[in-house]
Amino acid sequence: MKTVFVSDLGSEQTITTFFLVHEKEIRNTREGKPYLRLELGDRSGTIEARMWDQFETAARDVNRDDFVKVQARVEIYRNKPQLSLQQLRLAKPEEIELADFLPHTKEDVGKLYAQLLGYAGSIANPWLKNLVTGIITEPGIAARYKRAPAAKVMHHAYLGGLIEHVVGLCGLAKQVVAHYPELDLDLLLTAAILHDVGKLDELCYDRAIAYTTEGQLLGHIMMEFETVSKAIDAIEGFPHALKTVVQHLLISHHGQYEFGSPKLPMIREAMVFHYLDDLDSKLAAVRAALTIESGEDEWSAYSGALGRRFLKLDEFLKEKIGEAAKAK
Amino acid sequence: MKTVFVSDLGSEQTITTFFLVHEKEIRNTREGKPYLRLELGDRSGTIEARMWDQFETAARDVNRDDFVKVQARVEIYRNKPQLSLQQLRLAKPEEIELADFLPHTKEDVGKLYAQLLGYAGSIANPWLKNLVTGIITEPGIAARYKRAPAAKVMHHAYLGGLIEHVVGLCGLAKQVVAHYPELDLDLLLTAAILHDVGKLDELCYDRAIAYTTEGQLLGHIMMEFETVSKAIDAIEGFPHALKTVVQHLLISHHGQYEFGSPKLPMIREAMVFHYLDDLDSKLAAVRAALTIESGEDEWSAYSGALGRRFLKLDEFLKEKIGEAAKAK
Amino acid sequence: MKTVFVSDLGSEQTITTFFLVHEKEIRNTREGKPYLRLELGDRSGTIEARMWDQFETAARDVNRDDFVKVQARVEIYRNKPQLSLQQLRLAKPEEIELADFLPHTKEDVGKLYAQLLGYAGSIANPWLKNLVTGIITEPGIAARYKRAPAAKVMHHAYLGGLIEHVVGLCGLAKQVVAHYPELDLDLLLTAAILHDVGKLDELCYDRAIAYTTEGQLLGHIMMEFETVSKAIDAIEGFPHALKTVVQHLLISHHGQYEFGSPKLPMIREAMVFHYLDDLDSKLAAVRAALTIESGEDEWSAYSGALGRRFLKLDEFLKEKIGEAAKAK
Amino acid sequence: MKTVFVSDLGSEQTITTFFLVHEKEIRNTREGKPYLRLELGDRSGTIEARMWDQFETAARDVNRDDFVKVQARVEIYRNKPQLSLQQLRLAKPEEIELADFLPHTKEDVGKLYAQLLGYAGSIANPWLKNLVTGIITEPGIAARYKRAPAAKVMHHAYLGGLIEHVVGLCGLAKQVVAHYPELDLDLLLTAAILHDVGKLDELCYDRAIAYTTEGQLLGHIMMEFETVSKAIDAIEGFPHALKTVVQHLLISHHGQYEFGSPKLPMIREAMVFHYLDDLDSKLAAVRAALTIESGEDEWSAYSGALGRRFLKLDEFLKEKIGEAAKAK
Amino acid sequence: MKTVFVSDLGSEQTITTFFLVHEKEIRNTREGKPYLRLELGDRSGTIEARMWDQFETAARDVNRDDFVKVQARVEIYRNKPQLSLQQLRLAKPEEIELADFLPHTKEDVGKLYAQLLGYAGSIANPWLKNLVTGIITEPGIAARYKRAPAAKVMHHAYLGGLIEHVVGLCGLAKQVVAHYPELDLDLLLTAAILHDVGKLDELCYDRAIAYTTEGQLLGHIMMEFETVSKAIDAIEGFPHALKTVVQHLLISHHGQYEFGSPKLPMIREAMVFHYLDDLDSKLAAVRAALTIESGEDEWSAYSGALGRRFLKLDEFLKEKIGEAAKAK
Amino acid sequence: MKTVFVSDLGSEQTITTFFLVHEKEIRNTREGKPYLRLELGDRSGTIEARMWDQFETAARDVNRDDFVKVQARVEIYRNKPQLSLQQLRLAKPEEIELADFLPHTKEDVGKLYAQLLGYAGSIANPWLKNLVTGIITEPGIAARYKRAPAAKVMHHAYLGGLIEHVVGLCGLAKQVVAHYPELDLDLLLTAAILHDVGKLDELCYDRAIAYTTEGQLLGHIMMEFETVSKAIDAIEGFPHALKTVVQHLLISHHGQYEFGSPKLPMIREAMVFHYLDDLDSKLAAVRAALTIESGEDEWSAYSGALGRRFLKLDEFLKEKIGEAAKAK
Repeated sequence: MKTVFVSDLGSEQTITTFFLVHEKEIRNTREGKPYLRLELGDRSGTIEARMWDQFETAARDVNRDDFVKVQARVEIYRNKPQLSLQQLRLAKPEEIELADFLPHTKEDVGKLYAQLLGYAGSIANPWLKNLVTGIITEPGIAARYKRAPAAKVMHHAYLGGLIEHVVGLCGLAKQVVAHYPELDLDLLLTAAILHDVGKLDELCYDRAIAYTTEGQLLGHIMMEFETVSKAIDAIEGFPHALKTVVQHLLISHHGQYEFGSPKLPMIREAMVFHYLDDLDSKLAAVRAALTIESGEDEWSAYSGALGRRFLKLDEFLKEKIGEAAKAK
Repeated sequence: MKTVFVSDLGSEQTITTFFLVHEKEIRNTREGKPYLRLELGDRSGTIEARMWDQFETAARDVNRDDFVKVQARVEIYRNKPQLSLQQLRLAKPEEIELADFLPHTKEDVGKLYAQLLGYAGSIANPWLKNLVTGIITEPGIAARYKRAPAAKVMHHAYLGGLIEHVVGLCGLAKQVVAHYPELDLDLLLTAAILHDVGKLDELCYDRAIAYTTEGQLLGHIMMEFETVSKAIDAIEGFPHALKTVVQHLLISHHGQYEFGSPKLPMIREAMVFHYLDDLDSKLAAVRAALTIESGEDEWSAYSGALGRRFLKLDEFLKEKIGEAAKAK
Repeated sequence: MKTVFVSDLGSEQTITTFFLVHEKEIRNTREGKPYLRLELGDRSGTIEARMWDQFETAARDVNRDDFVKVQARVEIYRNKPQLSLQQLRLAKPEEIELADFLPHTKEDVGKLYAQLLGYAGSIANPWLKNLVTGIITEPGIAARYKRAPAAKVMHHAYLGGLIEHVVGLCGLAKQVVAHYPELDLDLLLTAAILHDVGKLDELCYDRAIAYTTEGQLLGHIMMEFETVSKAIDAIEGFPHALKTVVQHLLISHHGQYEFGSPKLPMIREAMVFHYLDDLDSKLAAVRAALTIESGEDEWSAYSGALGRRFLKLDEFLKEKIGEAAKAK
Repeated sequence: MKTVFVSDLGSEQTITTFFLVHEKEIRNTREGKPYLRLELGDRSGTIEARMWDQFETAARDVNRDDFVKVQARVEIYRNKPQLSLQQLRLAKPEEIELADFLPHTKEDVGKLYAQLLGYAGSIANPWLKNLVTGIITEPGIAARYKRAPAAKVMHHAYLGGLIEHVVGLCGLAKQVVAHYPELDLDLLLTAAILHDVGKLDELCYDRAIAYTTEGQLLGHIMMEFETVSKAIDAIEGFPHALKTVVQHLLISHHGQYEFGSPKLPMIREAMVFHYLDDLDSKLAAVRAALTIESGEDEWSAYSGALGRRFLKLDEFLKEKIGEAAKAK
Repeated sequence: MKTVFVSDLGSEQTITTFFLVHEKEIRNTREGKPYLRLELGDRSGTIEARMWDQFETAARDVNRDDFVKVQARVEIYRNKPQLSLQQLRLAKPEEIELADFLPHTKEDVGKLYAQLLGYAGSIANPWLKNLVTGIITEPGIAARYKRAPAAKVMHHAYLGGLIEHVVGLCGLAKQVVAHYPELDLDLLLTAAILHDVGKLDELCYDRAIAYTTEGQLLGHIMMEFETVSKAIDAIEGFPHALKTVVQHLLISHHGQYEFGSPKLPMIREAMVFHYLDDLDSKLAAVRAALTIESGEDEWSAYSGALGRRFLKLDEFLKEKIGEAAKAK
Repeated sequence: MKTVFVSDLGSEQTITTFFLVHEKEIRNTREGKPYLRLELGDRSGTIEARMWDQFETAARDVNRDDFVKVQARVEIYRNKPQLSLQQLRLAKPEEIELADFLPHTKEDVGKLYAQLLGYAGSIANPWLKNLVTGIITEPGIAARYKRAPAAKVMHHAYLGGLIEHVVGLCGLAKQVVAHYPELDLDLLLTAAILHDVGKLDELCYDRAIAYTTEGQLLGHIMMEFETVSKAIDAIEGFPHALKTVVQHLLISHHGQYEFGSPKLPMIREAMVFHYLDDLDSKLAAVRAALTIESGEDEWSAYSGALGRRFLKLDEFLKEKIGEAAKAK
């Protein structure tokens, strides 16, 4: 397990720790002397590293996507730290904690999963409860459900992001149904818990978050459509019309054709679920943009997902709005 | 006050009641005999009427947009009822209850206004509480705030629709802030209560809902921008940055340029408020579409506001989802 | 079986034949005398009918969507024929030939189906041949595959239109692969035969062509995605990657998001198949527009599917292009 | 006041002059020796500078956005000049002429302002003349009106650009009204003079042209809407309908929703003014693109504002069109 | 020549005059008695006409698009006038003044043509003067240039509309060049005079304004491109680069691809000409919308060309803006 | 003629060969020593070159776009080869084979041209055969027809690409007409052979593929419209309507306004030709994307023309689809 992370390396020091190899290259100095250049990373960022001497063995054994153990000196070059490697070897599997290398949710995934089971258990309609609970407790799915990110880039793009997003949506759905009693909570919870199940296979997230080839060819909407349809067919007596409703909730949740929904929402709960999913995703994107160092006093970093910067409200107002009340 | 409404007139009978004149025309029969043709209406719909004899005096006195008292026989022609007028005169102002002629909310506007005051009073920031309370209790505004519709066609298009929409948004905002504590409730309440104040003047709703000329030239966003900006300037010491934030909430609440917002939401609460406003409006439009008789078993009437029909879920499933639970 | 069709009724005469009831209404004359008004139709068009006397029994028994037998006099009113009904009763099922009431292909459906089996049998890859042949010979599917239209309005909108379109596409695919040998014919034939299988359930076409509720909620792409995925899973050993390829061919065949494809074609054959399907559909729409009487010398009727009129080339050139060669 | 500008530095020499600091950084040579690296600029461009020795004091005092006095040697490195600094200190306010550091109009701003007053004075309608003259002669506004640029990038992006653009528009409006006497010149002049008043606060242009935070949140249209509305309210008796007309001219002048106009022009003069404003801006952008060195014989530099290159007409024709007349 | 026009027929009277036949139909009364129904028209509008007796000969001779002479009684039916025909015969060619049947410019076409020649003669560049003058004085072109409308619907949609639009543009171009001396007046005049020459053949305007088949297949841009290119090739020594410039002015004048310009303006004068042409056309459309009776006090009729209504400014302000000056 | 190409230079060696100069620059080392830096290229790619000594003469004689002969040592720097020049001089014209410097079709252009003549000769309509044959055999055109690329970037972007594309289209048209006998082959062949004739002048392709200034101002559609219209006018008696049809085929072949077609296809063959042209171009773009080394196992390089990557089908399936048949 790592104790030193890239984001900690601000000053000259000697470190011994583990990294993932992002790039590897043999280069020559101007004088023609070869050296090994690596880009190393962990969940907090990446750093350049150079090994000047006796790198031949390491260079042969180590490749892109390997985990390595290094002993190195941190040097500040052009105001940025880089590593001068003294020792380098492949890490052993038991030395590596995957969570050190991929960003992950700050929440406790075990608790999130317990909450998820709670929401599934609270569904009143027995067919839907049966369906939803069956899927999220299936061993092949449960483990990945706890680990998957919700997206590659747009929002909740870290391990555990998917379950964090889903549990958040369940809670939001409860609040909103409390306000609009005409809405059916069972359908909203079913949609929340199943709407991104296809992402378990659309994305791969072993060492970095990326799309699988199958994911690119089909997309998570089709993948979960197939998974959920099969699960329904395995439940004897599941009403056919209710199956169609669940399928519609899944395929319409992106809300518009250009975002890959082959049908627009035509059921009240489908339309509402699209709003909730969109709101939770966009709000997560704003949160992420406001967290990153932007280099500006009053504006967040630019959010590609949202196509704009967001105001740092407290900086702009100089004080929290709520506090004005006390001050008076 | 009226006791008989257009929507009640399904069979032959004689009635005495009040209507608003929508159209007036002198026509000739094929044989060249002139008669008076009117289109009459109340809040429940419109009906054709003909007066065959001694209509000259009435025809001279009565014009479009007048309220009239009629005695008439209901006749069924081409499967539709129409009126054969026996007596017709201008109604006296004291005979007319405006609410009989314009559709209005089923909720108690007095209670809604009390709730509105409650929400305004719950704002913690003194500047915002002061601003919001001041505006909605201003005599010139309060009366119209209770009467205005929220729109001409799209949603809450009836008297009292505006306050119903606003109070609904305040409640929704509270639920959503309970879920996302990072959000500032004061700003969301301020946005909810002030975001459509311009509609008091953009629309006229004396006898029918329509746009004023000024409303067409400026739009409610600009009109409330001016009203609220002035109200802020009248509060000594109101922080300039907070004024800018309130202004931004107002002008960005349509969320996109093509819907008349000159700026996209660039503050977290502005973005969230846009979602809540949009959700509440769209849900009201679905509700309206599902209420109208559509002539189809499983589909609602076509909603122009939403560009589609919506599924009648209970009809399609044959039973309520929740009831399946009991049945099992 | 019918011998007289709506399109034949140009002059005064007395007829005895069968129709489908499209509309039914009791109306009153100006003088208050009730009469029965029907809109009757067959595959060639619709006609208004009136029954002035002794219609009470018929009016009670007969409803919209019923088939009826009539004896009537054809009268020309406002330059258009209409029927004065003398006798009217419900038709017996054995009196009705469905094909008389819905437009249908002019081709021999039995021959088309034989061609279809031939194309399926010509697929070299055993997994695909097995899949495709299995689906089109399944009893529940085969019968409807021969009867279904290809669309409600856009193209091949008549009984047997689907199989005509599919067999046409298979032939076109063979020609195009002959020109581009880099393309895989097996994939194109598989796509051609399966790409609209979902339309068997998306549309209903018993008495008129319309969408089913399930069809509106899911769309034929999702429906055939489920049907074909299940059929693949039922074939032991079907390669997983090949399944993904078939699924991608189905979901991408509309070519663009706004036409309901959740993925753009990302396989060469998927892109080519989209072009062929689009070309065959559009060409059928042009053919239909040129067939209808347009009322203009040099231009076809307006095609809603194509958003324009098409030139009547022979009329414009006054002679066929080919014939100029002989004339010289 | 500066005598040497960045664009003059083509050859080795020693200079003493003033610059604005755009970037500041301490770097190390490969050998680990620190040095000071600056990016310095004036209105004509930017240049890299390095200080190798005794830079500690200067590095502590000098920061980004400071004006500095330097003594330096110009060296040509990779075909581009850069500065080797010998002395460096903060400049004193009285040493700096802001116009040396921001590009500015080549016209005489005093004369432009006199013309502006002339146009305002020529307005016949007393309410409008009063309004317009009052605004541009208000001390807080007048000074900035003479200095503001018309935009950050798109057109007239230099000090004095706003007044140059406005005076140009006034002249153009006069010409166009001479051609279309149905148009009201008073309204066009009012629109021309007030339509960008919000830019005085939307942009900041002290040392470089940029958006203020308030400008980004509100935009110049809203800002001038508020400024002008207040100024109107301060004129006793100003007709309400005329106020609405002026407000409409301001908010519709971008002509389309996607360019931030919350209303489309619905008054004849509003539509015409949009055309004139757009034409003058685009023509200025073409002029700017043709002025920049593009590296191509027959084509201008690429104009981001216009999304294309423009033909260098004289180069393409080899002679001026007019001159052909003389040559003949 | 006509003395009575459709727009004059507001009261019962007997008239003798000429009309163009727009529609012709034999109908039956309810009682089965046939009568002749015509739609007749002139440049001021259309009116329904019925002939009850002895119409057989007339009905055989007269067809759609014929000019007829009628004697008829005007009757008011459903508040609208219609004609009861007493006599009806084909008009003789010499009885007909085409201008009575197509709307035409109120200006004097002879004077407009003289102005046009003046503008052409004022072109300094001899090649362009030669080209432009040659085209507009060619006998086959000159006659139609004076008669053609500028469009079917959008603007200047009346006989003489084209030359009115072109002469207007020449004048506008002079004014604008006076303001922007960097522009080449020769090019703008050339563009103005030639940019719609293709409309002479794109439209037909013998009895009504419509598109020719060739016009629909090619469009006026391609048609004038061919005409002008040929005219240039017939001028010995015309510089090739100048030819390309003229061609570019023609093909880019719609300014955007979606309006049928295959190239965007890439020459300064081409861009300016597009603005002037667009402005003059749009302003003519506003003028037309404001002229039509709209049925509303403060708003014009809806303009399909502009997609909106326009404010009746004087009505809204109650007085002319200019007059306020005198009033003070 | 060259024997060594850029793409062959993977290891240290000494070479003597010819290149085209893409860039030329004098630079200084950190120590201030000047050297000559060139970017050299041939049809297979580009490479950096440096000359350290005695480069003054060469630097004076050699410029961008010159062909040069070099003797150089290949060195590997940062994993990429670069050239250390020992000798450098201008190449003599007779030493240069243009095809070594521009990519060119792998097909035999002579054979392609013979096929083209065959297709032209097979046109049955004598007017069209005469027209088409006349154009492609005109000496000024024939030579360039064999050499021109079909595009700068999108598809067939190499010498001989145009004729390869056209001959391919002719073959495809024959196949498609065999399937749809309603189509006129003569028109499709005429369209195929003439639809890109304008590219002979729109592009220049002497040393690199680029647009001419005239090509940018007019585009190939307008250029071939003029060329073909003239050629038709030179054929006595060519029917006018047929001319219009040919012109329409040319101007509509891009199928949509935004791709520069001033008219949409309104003739059946015009619509079909647009599909064939589009299909052949897109398929060529897929082919090109699959040929380039993409650095990914299962995906092609990104195709800018298509806006996506394409699946490497054989890699994904691990075997060819056809081979599965044999394996069973």
